[in-house]
Amino acid sequence: MIKAGIIGATGYAGAELARLLLQREDVEIVWYGSRSYVGEDFASIYRNTSHAVNEPCKDDDMAKLAEIADVIFTATPQGFCASQVTEDILSKTKIIDLSADFRIKDVDIYEKWYKIKHATPQFIGEAVYGLPEINREKIKGARLIANPGCYPTCSFLSTYPLVKEGIIDPNTIIIDAKSGTSGAGRSAKVSSLFCEVNESMKAYGVAGHRHTPEIEEQLSYAAGKPVTISFTPHLVPMNRGILVTAYASLVKDVTTEEVKAIYDKYYQNEYFVRVLEPGLPPETRWVEGSNFADVSFKLDPRTKRVVMMGAIDNMVKGAAGQAMQNMNLLFGLPENTGLKQVPVFP
Amino acid sequence: MIKAGIIGATGYAGAELARLLLQREDVEIVWYGSRSYVGEDFASIYRNTSHAVNEPCKDDDMAKLAEIADVIFTATPQGFCASQVTEDILSKTKIIDLSADFRIKDVDIYEKWYKIKHATPQFIGEAVYGLPEINREKIKGARLIANPGCYPTCSFLSTYPLVKEGIIDPNTIIIDAKSGTSGAGRSAKVSSLFCEVNESMKAYGVAGHRHTPEIEEQLSYAAGKPVTISFTPHLVPMNRGILVTAYASLVKDVTTEEVKAIYDKYYQNEYFVRVLEPGLPPETRWVEGSNFADVSFKLDPRTKRVVMMGAIDNMVKGAAGQAMQNMNLLFGLPENTGLKQVPVFP
Amino acid sequence: MIKAGIIGATGYAGAELARLLLQREDVEIVWYGSRSYVGEDFASIYRNTSHAVNEPCKDDDMAKLAEIADVIFTATPQGFCASQVTEDILSKTKIIDLSADFRIKDVDIYEKWYKIKHATPQFIGEAVYGLPEINREKIKGARLIANPGCYPTCSFLSTYPLVKEGIIDPNTIIIDAKSGTSGAGRSAKVSSLFCEVNESMKAYGVAGHRHTPEIEEQLSYAAGKPVTISFTPHLVPMNRGILVTAYASLVKDVTTEEVKAIYDKYYQNEYFVRVLEPGLPPETRWVEGSNFADVSFKLDPRTKRVVMMGAIDNMVKGAAGQAMQNMNLLFGLPENTGLKQVPVFP
Amino acid sequence: MIKAGIIGATGYAGAELARLLLQREDVEIVWYGSRSYVGEDFASIYRNTSHAVNEPCKDDDMAKLAEIADVIFTATPQGFCASQVTEDILSKTKIIDLSADFRIKDVDIYEKWYKIKHATPQFIGEAVYGLPEINREKIKGARLIANPGCYPTCSFLSTYPLVKEGIIDPNTIIIDAKSGTSGAGRSAKVSSLFCEVNESMKAYGVAGHRHTPEIEEQLSYAAGKPVTISFTPHLVPMNRGILVTAYASLVKDVTTEEVKAIYDKYYQNEYFVRVLEPGLPPETRWVEGSNFADVSFKLDPRTKRVVMMGAIDNMVKGAAGQAMQNMNLLFGLPENTGLKQVPVFP
Repeated sequence: MIKAGIIGATGYAGAELARLLLQREDVEIVWYGSRSYVGEDFASIYRNTSHAVNEPCKDDDMAKLAEIADVIFTATPQGFCASQVTEDILSKTKIIDLSADFRIKDVDIYEKWYKIKHATPQFIGEAVYGLPEINREKIKGARLIANPGCYPTCSFLSTYPLVKEGIIDPNTIIIDAKSGTSGAGRSAKVSSLFCEVNESMKAYGVAGHRHTPEIEEQLSYAAGKPVTISFTPHLVPMNRGILVTAYASLVKDVTTEEVKAIYDKYYQNEYFVRVLEPGLPPETRWVEGSNFADVSFKLDPRTKRVVMMGAIDNMVKGAAGQAMQNMNLLFGLPENTGLKQVPVFP
Repeated sequence: MIKAGIIGATGYAGAELARLLLQREDVEIVWYGSRSYVGEDFASIYRNTSHAVNEPCKDDDMAKLAEIADVIFTATPQGFCASQVTEDILSKTKIIDLSADFRIKDVDIYEKWYKIKHATPQFIGEAVYGLPEINREKIKGARLIANPGCYPTCSFLSTYPLVKEGIIDPNTIIIDAKSGTSGAGRSAKVSSLFCEVNESMKAYGVAGHRHTPEIEEQLSYAAGKPVTISFTPHLVPMNRGILVTAYASLVKDVTTEEVKAIYDKYYQNEYFVRVLEPGLPPETRWVEGSNFADVSFKLDPRTKRVVMMGAIDNMVKGAAGQAMQNMNLLFGLPENTGLKQVPVFP
Repeated sequence: MIKAGIIGATGYAGAELARLLLQREDVEIVWYGSRSYVGEDFASIYRNTSHAVNEPCKDDDMAKLAEIADVIFTATPQGFCASQVTEDILSKTKIIDLSADFRIKDVDIYEKWYKIKHATPQFIGEAVYGLPEINREKIKGARLIANPGCYPTCSFLSTYPLVKEGIIDPNTIIIDAKSGTSGAGRSAKVSSLFCEVNESMKAYGVAGHRHTPEIEEQLSYAAGKPVTISFTPHLVPMNRGILVTAYASLVKDVTTEEVKAIYDKYYQNEYFVRVLEPGLPPETRWVEGSNFADVSFKLDPRTKRVVMMGAIDNMVKGAAGQAMQNMNLLFGLPENTGLKQVPVFP
Repeated sequence: MIKAGIIGATGYAGAELARLLLQREDVEIVWYGSRSYVGEDFASIYRNTSHAVNEPCKDDDMAKLAEIADVIFTATPQGFCASQVTEDILSKTKIIDLSADFRIKDVDIYEKWYKIKHATPQFIGEAVYGLPEINREKIKGARLIANPGCYPTCSFLSTYPLVKEGIIDPNTIIIDAKSGTSGAGRSAKVSSLFCEVNESMKAYGVAGHRHTPEIEEQLSYAAGKPVTISFTPHLVPMNRGILVTAYASLVKDVTTEEVKAIYDKYYQNEYFVRVLEPGLPPETRWVEGSNFADVSFKLDPRTKRVVMMGAIDNMVKGAAGQAMQNMNLLFGLPENTGLKQVPVFP
């Protein structure tokens, strides 16, 4: 029985993690950490878990939790995990951090984009970027996992094979991403009210969103050289789902079959990545509630560009599901344990 | 391994059944029946099942299916199952019919409300109304299960204890029900288009909806006398969920504690029925994607009425989940096998 | 040129009033009052008014506003208007109060349901309940208009003719009402977040909502005797719209034609009330953005009840539009001035 | 009094045109043409127009309509207007065609992208592309107006100033566009059902959408040379609204102030184009129900690109409102007659 603790369990990502872990018989949640709801029943806040959880929320004391947990998930605001992690904690337990604290190797870039001082840069080096599709082996032996962001997961999986194989010029990549509103979190803000989001769409963080350097770093590794991209997220009136539409200039003459073969090369053995038939666009509804990433592409001979597309559930493959996928790797379990859900439709 | 066949697999209810059955390791789906998509890959129609299903749709030949299936689910239009079922089929397999064909014992009432001639009234008698919370033992031994309607399931579970205990006058019951749009099915109709449903709400079938006699029959059994009710369904701009708000006149002076105790008496051992704290209204979001029914009530001393409330996912407890619950009973399995999903939120 | 001031202009109802008034050439808005946004450009908060408004928000000083305004609209929380109104203000300007402060004649009932001490009960007597369809002549000469609540407007218009004509027993009336989320206002609350409201439905304020006594008072006048009703509001995942489904026992044998004739008798000369063909249920989409109230009914001979239905736009006929209708009456203008908009669909 | 006829009045765009025209006192709608609903009351199909329209639908006989109408709007499928227009009709009335038949000057390109033979290429030359912001004077004297597409209107207005001024390389333009579902029309298709669209997002027509050559042609005129772009439309779960996010490489070093000045140069005298403060992204909610186009931009020095953004209501500025704007020009009226609506929010 894996003993798992969640710090930040009352945010949307933390609660989704609870939902997924609760369905496993080999995991016990020993800690529902919260800042706002300490002492209140978790199931009174997330009533979907009623009859499944009968525990009050605890505080966010990671050191104390480390004494009892085999793994700690931190689904917390930027800076929290970095401020709490210690060698002592890491010697006792595994940490899977759903925040951005350990995703970016260059601390200056982190501090510049996040406008925050990194409290424990000494742990950045050992942290492993928890995208199993590229870092599977490293993850298995890690103590500290930097669970990828929702946009980066979808952006990277959609574009990675063509960057890696040198089919496209990575510096021409433009990523236009669209997210459901759960990505904005559960804090009470006018801009997240139903009537403000419903029946509308907008871009935000244009040319300045903090997921940009995370995507760039990972694509740079793939390209073997520094990559700079354009990234624009948008808010969509739906609860869940991220859709990525990415554009890049082709640097080679390729056929649809050849490009399809490249995607297959990277993903045909990946349980969670479904490569669609060429030209068939992914739709967020087909991955909702699951850990799948659907990817596809379309060549455009008129412009000598390729359109790369991807869809994930931002709460699952974009957060909690991927975290559990990493947990499975950390504990030597089949990677899809507890993650075989067929997407919910409609 | 239970071999299950689905006739009508490409409707919303049939596809939901497929989704739930696919997640079980003790069930094999041997037949995806369809009228419109014979020969097409099921996973090309319901792309959420991609990588989980690799089968073409078959026709709706129940006799042929009966040769290979341990259980047949019919998620088909009214009249179909009745027109196909034979003694031979029933001797070879179990049938769980998600249509209304065998729900109503009085064939005249069926024919009057459904405006259809019942093809095989000889089987009505043996059919068991598949609401496990009241008919558990009968279900176990049945050959033919009449899986309850979505509205009746939610309406009945919300009101049953107070009718059974004689707390309310059953002939004063008024049920105002609200359903997500998946209840309207997947047929291409202008009235079900996104722009026609979104940002609107309406009643339909006022004083004439076909679920009325089904609710009345079951409440009559509970009351021990004929019951006539008012029932009004409404269409809500959401995918899933049924909410029932039911009103009735109290015939006894009762306290909130007493009424709560009555609900608990009937439901405290029911895995799928969650009785909320008195006065806390059920919300469809807290049951979405699950087989739970949340029920609650509020006494109104000013009017000497009680407001009884319930919420279910119309696709799960209102259709496919309940069908699988019945299947579990038929095969001697724990009733919640494959149905322990924590509701998906948000 | 009518000089109008809005106190509470940055709430949804106040902003809707601004939108409607801005489209008139005979009205000038001289004051955008706000508590939260004093000094900020109104058009930076409600960007829909960009290029139409070029004014900062002012405070909520009614006395000062009374010096310059011909009419003051108060779209403010309960208690505010009552706490500010004075004989001096009323001698200088007209007040149309969109809050509940002056809607209920019995101050004890007001204080009991609103849990607030009424600051100026001396003005309750002269205040006129601003439902033009029943109080048109009184409104014309009033100084202080109590603009009806959204639910009461729709509930009353749907049921009034049959109560007035004694066709139904008013004490059997059960009103099940459904509202879009703009009715919850623009304050930042978790319960109003997109992800909490979207894809869900719930009742609230069961057997205790504060619009109950307002409906009862008006129905009591119509019935000529005290009336007690059941009233349950529900929250619907849409921006605008109220739908009322009301049930009552018939006390006479009546035909559909007779009941239709009664509705026509009361409403055929009412510009804003559209009586639908019997049995055709109102839908909120058909009134969105307009001041129309669509009403209809269905007799149910099985239960000897009638189902009365109505739909309005809660922001227009339920708040700002009705307030402007009242303004028109106060200033001797055609009642539909500025209110002839055809509903927006889809 | 302008006598206007609408062919295709029962589609969403035609009905929106009816809604807008009905609110004018200087226009009479003399013909509600329809293919599917001939003889049925228009107000029974679009119940929002109840009490405003009392006319049955007529057929789509343009020649007959030309005898009585001062202007004919064709809101019809591709090919219809071209197949009907004659010199005789044009000598008697004005035509504003909301389809694509006369938008593209090169008939080969039209026929290739629309996969249809153009029936009357002889009229293409005289047709005027009805985007008043660039063709105002030509429109005034035209007989035949090609009303722009919804995506092209928003795409062009967002990018035009920077193309015209040579600030960006037009062949690097990538337009990622998002549309509400009313753009898919009112035909009964499974893919437009509520449950298929709600809670999902997808691209469609990738690298092949028929609005591409229309955008390219207009941008080519602006650039003074052939322009090829990438254009990807997406379907969004909302009724109305188009959002465009366009990317292009800067060919000059420019400051935010300089770019803002360029937008202002082209739009400061345009009633319907609102240039937002730099960096403030347009949102479709702020233009809903109005003829406004909100445009904005953000420079990205890291990538030497500019992100250009625009939002319109696809039914108004993207179709019916622009058509009415064109009608105003044709009849010598102030361009914003009947189009001063403040956007509806929420």
